[in-house]
Amino acid sequence: MSTVKPIITPEELLKHWQGHRALTRRVIEAFTEKDLFEFSIGGMRPFSTLAKELLAIAVPGLKEIVTGETSPFDEEGAGLETKAAILEAWDQSTVQIDDYWAQISLEKFRETNNLFGQYNFPVIDNILYFIDNEIHHRGQGYVYLRALGIEPPYFWEREKVAVEG
Amino acid sequence: MSTVKPIITPEELLKHWQGHRALTRRVIEAFTEKDLFEFSIGGMRPFSTLAKELLAIAVPGLKEIVTGETSPFDEEGAGLETKAAILEAWDQSTVQIDDYWAQISLEKFRETNNLFGQYNFPVIDNILYFIDNEIHHRGQGYVYLRALGIEPPYFWEREKVAVEG
Repeated sequence: MSTVKPIITPEELLKHWQGHRALTRRVIEAFTEKDLFEFSIGGMRPFSTLAKELLAIAVPGLKEIVTGETSPFDEEGAGLETKAAILEAWDQSTVQIDDYWAQISLEKFRETNNLFGQYNFPVIDNILYFIDNEIHHRGQGYVYLRALGIEPPYFWEREKVAVEG
Repeated sequence: MSTVKPIITPEELLKHWQGHRALTRRVIEAFTEKDLFEFSIGGMRPFSTLAKELLAIAVPGLKEIVTGETSPFDEEGAGLETKAAILEAWDQSTVQIDDYWAQISLEKFRETNNLFGQYNFPVIDNILYFIDNEIHHRGQGYVYLRALGIEPPYFWEREKVAVEG
């Protein structure tokens, strides 16, 4: 085996993802309550629905990778009917992601996982999909904000938001 | 050092990026000539301008990483005034990316590179930025297409497009 360091470590990939999640949190915050749940372009989903999808993927996906217990994908987001509720769920997920991540062994990243009983790929591909899908939908959120006349956060702003209380 | 395989190898990360680039190519193709250069929402740039930005980052960025020669960022895209010209430049970049990538040593990914003389980060961070920025802008392109009543390609369609001729 090589004695050269890997191009990215699990800790660095987690930091990368959590940085993206901090930016997505800023995008959720930038919407008014009404627009978060109602505004859309071209028949696409409002940003609240996209945020619920991201919440339905991150922790449930990691939990499945760690425990091996598969559940069907559920993006209904019951109870997430306000911006405050979505942001609270987001912050809870941030902690849970750190916790589950710490339980993924280095070997595990290359094992296959049948995500949500449907997508049978190596764990690293599952995780890159989580991140890519979040960037993709957040890019959609940027257009919604611009169309609403709201300046989105800078794309390179990735430090964690201080959580109040 | 660990004897466990890394979570992702350079070859896998290249395949991941080129898969994203194949999808972005489909998005460019999905626009009509006129809309590619003119359509926008909320004062954002037309998708042709975003594609030129991506072209100005990918090969020049990798070239800098490989050769160590820094040039200022130039996203003017002189000569890229038609959809065909952008697609041709895209396909040329696909080959050049493979070529430059093969010249990046495993050690190099963790060395710092002052990208375009401005962004001094490890090479792996430069490269993740290239990919993330492409996904971000392509997400914007999806909204443009939906607003134009055009069905965008599936997000998970990543196999390379057969290039004609």
